[in-house]
Amino acid sequence: MSSLIRDLAGGSAEMLEIFDDASVVKHALAFEAALAKAQAAEGLLSEDEAARIAIACAQLPLDTEVLAIEAAHAGTLAIPLVAHLRRALGDETLQRKIHLGATSQDVADTVLMLQAKEGAALITRELDRLQTALALLAERMAATPALGRTLMQSAVPITFGLKAANWLSGIDEASGRFRRECANALMLQFGGAAGTRAGLGGKGTAIAAHMAGLLGLSHSPLPWQARRGHIAGLAASLAILIGAGAKIARDISLLAQNEIAEVFEPRAVGRGGSSIMAHKRNPIGCQIVLSAAARAPGLAAAILSVLPQEQERGLGGWQAEAPVLTNLFILCHGALKTLAVAIEGLEVDAARMAHNLAAANVGLDTGDSEALVRSFLAARKSQA
Amino acid sequence: MSSLIRDLAGGSAEMLEIFDDASVVKHALAFEAALAKAQAAEGLLSEDEAARIAIACAQLPLDTEVLAIEAAHAGTLAIPLVAHLRRALGDETLQRKIHLGATSQDVADTVLMLQAKEGAALITRELDRLQTALALLAERMAATPALGRTLMQSAVPITFGLKAANWLSGIDEASGRFRRECANALMLQFGGAAGTRAGLGGKGTAIAAHMAGLLGLSHSPLPWQARRGHIAGLAASLAILIGAGAKIARDISLLAQNEIAEVFEPRAVGRGGSSIMAHKRNPIGCQIVLSAAARAPGLAAAILSVLPQEQERGLGGWQAEAPVLTNLFILCHGALKTLAVAIEGLEVDAARMAHNLAAANVGLDTGDSEALVRSFLAARKSQA
Amino acid sequence: MSSLIRDLAGGSAEMLEIFDDASVVKHALAFEAALAKAQAAEGLLSEDEAARIAIACAQLPLDTEVLAIEAAHAGTLAIPLVAHLRRALGDETLQRKIHLGATSQDVADTVLMLQAKEGAALITRELDRLQTALALLAERMAATPALGRTLMQSAVPITFGLKAANWLSGIDEASGRFRRECANALMLQFGGAAGTRAGLGGKGTAIAAHMAGLLGLSHSPLPWQARRGHIAGLAASLAILIGAGAKIARDISLLAQNEIAEVFEPRAVGRGGSSIMAHKRNPIGCQIVLSAAARAPGLAAAILSVLPQEQERGLGGWQAEAPVLTNLFILCHGALKTLAVAIEGLEVDAARMAHNLAAANVGLDTGDSEALVRSFLAARKSQA
Amino acid sequence: MSSLIRDLAGGSAEMLEIFDDASVVKHALAFEAALAKAQAAEGLLSEDEAARIAIACAQLPLDTEVLAIEAAHAGTLAIPLVAHLRRALGDETLQRKIHLGATSQDVADTVLMLQAKEGAALITRELDRLQTALALLAERMAATPALGRTLMQSAVPITFGLKAANWLSGIDEASGRFRRECANALMLQFGGAAGTRAGLGGKGTAIAAHMAGLLGLSHSPLPWQARRGHIAGLAASLAILIGAGAKIARDISLLAQNEIAEVFEPRAVGRGGSSIMAHKRNPIGCQIVLSAAARAPGLAAAILSVLPQEQERGLGGWQAEAPVLTNLFILCHGALKTLAVAIEGLEVDAARMAHNLAAANVGLDTGDSEALVRSFLAARKSQA
Repeated sequence: MSSLIRDLAGGSAEMLEIFDDASVVKHALAFEAALAKAQAAEGLLSEDEAARIAIACAQLPLDTEVLAIEAAHAGTLAIPLVAHLRRALGDETLQRKIHLGATSQDVADTVLMLQAKEGAALITRELDRLQTALALLAERMAATPALGRTLMQSAVPITFGLKAANWLSGIDEASGRFRRECANALMLQFGGAAGTRAGLGGKGTAIAAHMAGLLGLSHSPLPWQARRGHIAGLAASLAILIGAGAKIARDISLLAQNEIAEVFEPRAVGRGGSSIMAHKRNPIGCQIVLSAAARAPGLAAAILSVLPQEQERGLGGWQAEAPVLTNLFILCHGALKTLAVAIEGLEVDAARMAHNLAAANVGLDTGDSEALVRSFLAARKSQA
Repeated sequence: MSSLIRDLAGGSAEMLEIFDDASVVKHALAFEAALAKAQAAEGLLSEDEAARIAIACAQLPLDTEVLAIEAAHAGTLAIPLVAHLRRALGDETLQRKIHLGATSQDVADTVLMLQAKEGAALITRELDRLQTALALLAERMAATPALGRTLMQSAVPITFGLKAANWLSGIDEASGRFRRECANALMLQFGGAAGTRAGLGGKGTAIAAHMAGLLGLSHSPLPWQARRGHIAGLAASLAILIGAGAKIARDISLLAQNEIAEVFEPRAVGRGGSSIMAHKRNPIGCQIVLSAAARAPGLAAAILSVLPQEQERGLGGWQAEAPVLTNLFILCHGALKTLAVAIEGLEVDAARMAHNLAAANVGLDTGDSEALVRSFLAARKSQA
Repeated sequence: MSSLIRDLAGGSAEMLEIFDDASVVKHALAFEAALAKAQAAEGLLSEDEAARIAIACAQLPLDTEVLAIEAAHAGTLAIPLVAHLRRALGDETLQRKIHLGATSQDVADTVLMLQAKEGAALITRELDRLQTALALLAERMAATPALGRTLMQSAVPITFGLKAANWLSGIDEASGRFRRECANALMLQFGGAAGTRAGLGGKGTAIAAHMAGLLGLSHSPLPWQARRGHIAGLAASLAILIGAGAKIARDISLLAQNEIAEVFEPRAVGRGGSSIMAHKRNPIGCQIVLSAAARAPGLAAAILSVLPQEQERGLGGWQAEAPVLTNLFILCHGALKTLAVAIEGLEVDAARMAHNLAAANVGLDTGDSEALVRSFLAARKSQA
Repeated sequence: MSSLIRDLAGGSAEMLEIFDDASVVKHALAFEAALAKAQAAEGLLSEDEAARIAIACAQLPLDTEVLAIEAAHAGTLAIPLVAHLRRALGDETLQRKIHLGATSQDVADTVLMLQAKEGAALITRELDRLQTALALLAERMAATPALGRTLMQSAVPITFGLKAANWLSGIDEASGRFRRECANALMLQFGGAAGTRAGLGGKGTAIAAHMAGLLGLSHSPLPWQARRGHIAGLAASLAILIGAGAKIARDISLLAQNEIAEVFEPRAVGRGGSSIMAHKRNPIGCQIVLSAAARAPGLAAAILSVLPQEQERGLGGWQAEAPVLTNLFILCHGALKTLAVAIEGLEVDAARMAHNLAAANVGLDTGDSEALVRSFLAARKSQA
């Protein structure tokens, strides 16, 4: 939707693929296949019919560009997609058994949750790397004295390990929330036209539970077509994760100022240079993370703002969530990945820290810094 | 800070008091007294000294207007407040033992958490009322047919109880998150100048744990002066609660349109009238809730935006959180209280619902609506 | 609405008064008196009746706390206020001639515009001070070499005057927009129940024009009850002004870091100290401005989010604007006032600048810095 | 950056192209060519050298996918792009004359402004269509009675033309601001490493003025690398335009409710259907516009939030603006285009309006509705 050259935001091609058109279509077809299979299990169609539908879903030849135009015209993907499926199936009886009891929002919401699940896995991978790197850093620097700075002024001594422990604790906290919100949010949607699971002989809830299992999502006893708190909770948790990362980036960018020069992003050929100043070593990793953090709060606010959706299924609100949540996933992943690299290779100049601390003339008492780090890391280990 | 006449937002005087100047000062003095008591327990001062400090805190005569001017000048409350305390104590030795090892942000953060705890209690009270009223409504209307509406158009039949169950489920979900975020957030802050708990002979963490117990907050092994994810999580949870309430208000305002006329806010003399149209019955409760929901996302975004705070204690970021979080508490409480009243007295016109449903000519099959309501309510009961 | 001790935000008592309850009531009564006078001019009531109404408005004894409760109950101020006025007037014929053709939103919107006009005057006063101080600073330092810094790294030489000129240019730009948006926004509202100016014998527009003149607002040929773009434009312009100020505060806070130490906020006894570190000199002015800038974008977003107001007059949207716009005015005024003081007394250490520049080893070529400053200031003068 | 299938938002392929990777590269090369030409005019290089650079820019073979990876690594596009250009040129002397005196942000900012200019032209085209359609609608319906609705309740009579006039007036207002902000914002950026235009023998400003002319942007006497108010103003104006459009969409969606049924989006085969309910006629145009309006405020807030950029050129702030502004342009264009189609073909059922008005039993006095419409349209014409 815009320029990758300008907007890659540190993310991976892998994450972009999770949210691209092909992925949307893939998950939508998986929804239809799972629906047929679950309905077969409940006797609404035969196992053979379900199998033929599954094959049609697996083999459907689709041009995503054409489909995008059709979906934009229809106002939703499911209408043209199901039409293509029906044409592919040929058999009129079978045509009527596709998408049975489902509405287009069931597909759209479930697709988004499937993408979110895949996106969460990538984020978790980067979180693991980042947390490991931060724990090592905190441990290694637990006793290394440095100048503490408050309200942008020199304050009193800390150890650099305490700063790293705080960074890690911020990521831990945000990571915990993200996992909770994922567990809360990643549900199948299956409600039908108005959330009543009508037209399925009272078997709608059993079908939903079965589908959820097939697709690896959790089951929501009540459809949630107009109940979006968990989407908002997930969005907020992504924004908080980004913010916890940006706290680290903010600190690194401050500590890397030439007059302070205590830590630096790892050197990489061709990274952080200037098109005009050969001596520059710009903190590009911090730039990416801070840029993500500038964008995230407004994205989370957009999702918060559409909570009051109309009646059984709203107009314009849930349709706004998908692209915005996509954006948050991509920004979060890019920020964490960038930060993991930066922390793994962080250059720390303990001698310069000692020098700056001495120059500040605030004594050498680092208080309980080291003890705080040690007990924090020990407690983390015992919980793991 | 502005006009109550225009901004009361459905809240109570009780909630406004929790966040007013007198309350800030009260909690700040409670912090200083608890600090002295905890330090006495750890042998840093005598029990007698702690008692004298506690008395001084309890009896300190303060003019909050003067203090506001002094705090604005100093840039923080603790500096003038501690100065007043010291003057009141007289004894120079004792003067040095006040506020020992604490920094002004320790006071400010702890005060905010104490206010948040009181605010959360009021919100919980209104949540209980609202959830009870919604559960009764859902039960009573479990089988009452109504027209489902999707994308702002007539869709297929539901029961009105299913709509109420969805409202309740949205509130349940948001309430669960709010409770989790409170449990996560309501911590004592005690880190000292740069979060190292220096100057306390290694007893800082024991003192912090003791103080937390005295003040009824949880204990954070690491001070969190520049780690603000839990504040953001709490803010987001308040915004989501408001949004879950506004979903209900949106629906009521749509259903109360004269051409639909299915539900109405309870009648109250002098409420909802027009200054010019005698026939009007404006949904004032919905207005209050929707208005809160218009304001909440931007407030949550503001708190999300200050996560990247600088170094050991930041400049401008945490100082922005307190008034914004205050605003969210007041708006949330007002919205829930208003909604509780509206749902308790909601007028539901089942005959009109039947009429509108018949007119829509979409049949009478409400699918699993009633079963969904019943099983949802049963599951809620079994969890309670 | 919350704690002044924590939330004064650098503003003046004068600005708080402009937006307090008494001011709301004062302007609401001014609206009613102007309406009567304008209607008398158009022959809808006699000059004597208008005069008696004006006297009643001027003399009405009101308890704003009671009125706040009544307004909260009614959902709008005008209903109880007009009822009080009618009781005060006694004469039944005259009672019917009050508030004739007006609706409560006419009062609320006009009151907000009258407050905004007064608030704009205060802001303009601080802008004048700040612009004058910045122009002097830019002129004085036009040729003073300093190190330019980009992407948080040392870059190439500038003059400090060029930085000040950029600060000023940012304020000029934002100030120009603010003035344009005020000129665009500060309109009387007079539309009646649904914006048709009914019940006034076709004289509604003449009455509106007359009232606008009496109240010092501009006249809107069409009532704007559900057309709120100018409110959003005004809100955005306030947020941009705050942001232009915060750019200056950000720079000062970076330049005042102890390792850089090039500029400092003016010293003031008791300001910027630490409750625990005697050596600290915290940039409290920057804190106030940066804090305002953290809050402003979300406030502007809230006002942007309510643009799609329903039908002839909306529910919940315009009611959200007034407290949010109030907040923006107070934050903007506090930020600019704080900054004016900081710039007027800014301590600039040119020797340290020279030292830091030499240490950076990036040569001494300040390019066109001085010429850019001189021509910028000359162009400003010629436009004034 | 995400799924077009889900995120097309009513826009055109034309608008997407304006902001795609190829366009970014095209404009970046145009910047370098214009720079060379302007420098030749000022004698910094020969006309022949400028011509050879222009040819290299025009003929440079580029793989945008590779370039995206290189730019992400370098943290900015200009570094790899200029390297490719230099390789293409071969001649070492000429290599040194490329990008002379420019920094990578000069390229990035100018590219964004060139894209914004093209985007503004597309938006203006849709605005013209929409304004024409609304003016015709207002004129045609100037005297058609309809029920006015306020606070979501039936109020008093209006004419439908008055509603359309208000819609148009909202678009006019927002359109005026958008044009002003474009005129204010669309400037060349040329400041060099730290905004001093160093290394150009004092000819930097003349070169900038010349380049601005070549590229069709306005000239900024001071470079604006860390002064971003005009970007924020432009972003806000786009959000307000979207909001003014969404006000119309909100009204149409309310009026198209089956129980009201006064207006409808134009019928189009395959648009607005339901995947499950054959009778549905969903207001898909309104959905697109309301969805854009849900996303815009947070995007504007993001751009407002980065105003306090650090020093001569910031870290993370301006890098966040480009993708966000891109998003606003695409959403605004899609919303206006969608709305233009909807208004051009709007089905208005005057008989139903009369029926609903009669049913409301609020009389037939439409006040000055028609006169207000006529004078509004006449005033518009006389200004055009």
